[in-house]
Amino acid sequence: MACTCNSHNSDSVHLSTAVDPNDVLVTSSDPIHPANLICELCRRFYDNGWVTGTGGGISIREEDNIYIAPSGVQKERLVPENMFVMDLKSQEYLRKPLALKPSACTPLFMSAYTMRGAGACIHTHSQAAVMVTLLFDKVFEISSIEQIKAIPKVVEPGNLWYSDKLVIPIIENTEKEEDLTDSLQQAIKDYPGTTAVLVRRHGIYVWGETVWKAKVYNEAIDYLLEIAVKMKQFGIETVKAKD
Amino acid sequence: MACTCNSHNSDSVHLSTAVDPNDVLVTSSDPIHPANLICELCRRFYDNGWVTGTGGGISIREEDNIYIAPSGVQKERLVPENMFVMDLKSQEYLRKPLALKPSACTPLFMSAYTMRGAGACIHTHSQAAVMVTLLFDKVFEISSIEQIKAIPKVVEPGNLWYSDKLVIPIIENTEKEEDLTDSLQQAIKDYPGTTAVLVRRHGIYVWGETVWKAKVYNEAIDYLLEIAVKMKQFGIETVKAKD
Amino acid sequence: MACTCNSHNSDSVHLSTAVDPNDVLVTSSDPIHPANLICELCRRFYDNGWVTGTGGGISIREEDNIYIAPSGVQKERLVPENMFVMDLKSQEYLRKPLALKPSACTPLFMSAYTMRGAGACIHTHSQAAVMVTLLFDKVFEISSIEQIKAIPKVVEPGNLWYSDKLVIPIIENTEKEEDLTDSLQQAIKDYPGTTAVLVRRHGIYVWGETVWKAKVYNEAIDYLLEIAVKMKQFGIETVKAKD
Amino acid sequence: MACTCNSHNSDSVHLSTAVDPNDVLVTSSDPIHPANLICELCRRFYDNGWVTGTGGGISIREEDNIYIAPSGVQKERLVPENMFVMDLKSQEYLRKPLALKPSACTPLFMSAYTMRGAGACIHTHSQAAVMVTLLFDKVFEISSIEQIKAIPKVVEPGNLWYSDKLVIPIIENTEKEEDLTDSLQQAIKDYPGTTAVLVRRHGIYVWGETVWKAKVYNEAIDYLLEIAVKMKQFGIETVKAKD
Repeated sequence: MACTCNSHNSDSVHLSTAVDPNDVLVTSSDPIHPANLICELCRRFYDNGWVTGTGGGISIREEDNIYIAPSGVQKERLVPENMFVMDLKSQEYLRKPLALKPSACTPLFMSAYTMRGAGACIHTHSQAAVMVTLLFDKVFEISSIEQIKAIPKVVEPGNLWYSDKLVIPIIENTEKEEDLTDSLQQAIKDYPGTTAVLVRRHGIYVWGETVWKAKVYNEAIDYLLEIAVKMKQFGIETVKAKD
Repeated sequence: MACTCNSHNSDSVHLSTAVDPNDVLVTSSDPIHPANLICELCRRFYDNGWVTGTGGGISIREEDNIYIAPSGVQKERLVPENMFVMDLKSQEYLRKPLALKPSACTPLFMSAYTMRGAGACIHTHSQAAVMVTLLFDKVFEISSIEQIKAIPKVVEPGNLWYSDKLVIPIIENTEKEEDLTDSLQQAIKDYPGTTAVLVRRHGIYVWGETVWKAKVYNEAIDYLLEIAVKMKQFGIETVKAKD
Repeated sequence: MACTCNSHNSDSVHLSTAVDPNDVLVTSSDPIHPANLICELCRRFYDNGWVTGTGGGISIREEDNIYIAPSGVQKERLVPENMFVMDLKSQEYLRKPLALKPSACTPLFMSAYTMRGAGACIHTHSQAAVMVTLLFDKVFEISSIEQIKAIPKVVEPGNLWYSDKLVIPIIENTEKEEDLTDSLQQAIKDYPGTTAVLVRRHGIYVWGETVWKAKVYNEAIDYLLEIAVKMKQFGIETVKAKD
Repeated sequence: MACTCNSHNSDSVHLSTAVDPNDVLVTSSDPIHPANLICELCRRFYDNGWVTGTGGGISIREEDNIYIAPSGVQKERLVPENMFVMDLKSQEYLRKPLALKPSACTPLFMSAYTMRGAGACIHTHSQAAVMVTLLFDKVFEISSIEQIKAIPKVVEPGNLWYSDKLVIPIIENTEKEEDLTDSLQQAIKDYPGTTAVLVRRHGIYVWGETVWKAKVYNEAIDYLLEIAVKMKQFGIETVKAKD
């Protein structure tokens, strides 16, 4: 079944069904093995409307192995054999499905690994994220919403408090995704407390210490982006004036 | 599978797989045993967007045993072994998963049990609830919407009528969830007819005589909160003027 | 499993597990037997937000047997044993689950059967329906939307055309659901071409020649109600001016 | 089960259960055989609200065999035996389920095959599509949203760039769906770079070189239509002014 889906997923491609020695990297009966979990999470993200039309992506690090979903495939139809695997140190591919293209997000994901020691990085085209970049200028800011307490301070242990202001930088989009790398890295330097970067008219990158933390941060941030758009519709400021 | 999920759910934790004598409290093949039902309902609440990003919580009472979902875990990935169990009278833990933190909602849930004799209490971060607390002042009020008939009068048997006014108090949020306890208890005293309390910029607590009633009240109230936001968008008053 | 759910669904009730001679009316392995299909459709309606919090209902006629979902139960947890069965001619119950209450919608459903020869009748608390009754006066009107072509003319064979005006009467809500019967019957008489009646601040009743037609009409009408609310948000008239 | 559903799907019809020599065209254990895949995709489109109430349709070409979902049936209940199969060259039916009506979209789907060499064509009643036709005049235009990069240039290889302007023509609706054929064909000629045509107050037709590409284009376009409506709500232009 996997091979059937796969061969049609990339539209003109027939992955070999012969055993590939690299397949050991993506073959596991453990549902939370990165190659399996990426597929499960992509199905969930697809149902949320975050990665429709092949948009978005996800990468998970297991020690020095970086698992990355491929470019241009339907995210809800991913199978473990579709995964690229890169070595963190050499930045060379340990596994490269012949028929697929590596994700254009790869240098962006790698920035989260090398600059922040992240365990996973999620990229979505969430409509709430895009709308927020149309409604805010250089940064997205929100304070005094309970869900903020799910977001880490990063520069010190622990999470933000309820009345803390969450600030997420917004970088300008570029024609090619890989050309975002410089400005994403600059934003990571300029905002040492951020665990996410918004991209104008494009979407969001969110990372975390582990895949579960990245998932939770992404969910909590998307919740905040969505409610910020609703607040704007009613003319309510997203940053609460101090009492 | 349960253990696998569990050990990753809390991110740095490995729950013992040895048989724990306390496990009898959470081990049942009955799908409506509290430990199982909390998991099922949390998956549903997650799909509704009420408990994303580890937000929200739920507690069910079975006689004097209070089952409580833990803090800071992904609600859609809960397994029965994650449950805390507290004795209603002594307020001591009968079961405490070593690797997990008790819910910060615990004193709030206990207030519903001790002050109202509730059978279950649900806490969500519903966006409709948060929006309503931004659009209303001290109380949320709505009348003359059919769904109101699903809400109990509390001070006497039976439910509200169609044209009755549903009033739900809104308390101010605090930095720490447990610090809500005093104002929640005050609201319960001040509004003897309420089966719910809204928390500004945070969410809602809803309780009921049984878990099913709590679930139904929560669904019906959330429906009313959602339609109230829509009415506000059109400038329609949520309390109907008397004819 | 059915019995387990059932006994908790009504909160204080234990239906007998002994074989009831009336059970033959609700026991079938055919997924489209009315007792099974009501359960399936209620789960779908629940997922659509049309019958949350025990709201709404559905009835299917099979020859002279009228199947009706009970009152006050969680619609997504219905099991076939929960069904009431009434004889169309005598209007007496052929089957009455002891622990459950008959639906308050019963006289309304019967009106669709006796006055229109319907094969099924659906009642939802759709938020789009409620919003439309807040935005329109005596009738809901829409024209020149393709989905209108799914709605029957009723007074003659065939469906409405694209540019035809769909008109659905809106009746005023009453404190008790059964008290809607007179005005619903009057609306059915006054609007011989309608296959639905909206109830102000309450929801909608939709019927059809068969259960599938009732389902299709209900879906198509709800689509039109939803898009009408969106059109109103943009200040677009729902009835297109003639070119 | 298939036959059971089928016989009720079309409401007054009993498809023969005898083996039909044409059944070989629709009988396959391969989940991506066109007859199976149409059913799967229609369930997904139904869940997206694109084909409720029997609206919308889909067709897949396999070499010279054109598979087409029938008219007037519930799209989420389709079974492979419901499929019509037409020969591309002779435009005669190779398979015609006796009890069903061919889709009124047939000449429109055929236009995409004959004029563009498409591999599949999707037609939905997406509410975002209908809203956009109420908010735009002769064409829908949007630029500088990342999702645009999922849409093909058509007139040359490759996809649009981020800052390219996507232009989709809007044709006027007609009373009968088949009467759209002339204006659809004219739009295909007038807009050689388009892979979709919007129909005012009706929906959208999207085609692609393969079924997967058609699905991806349709998802990406619907995402853009949806975000365009949100931009309009905030008074934001969908075509970005050049910097």
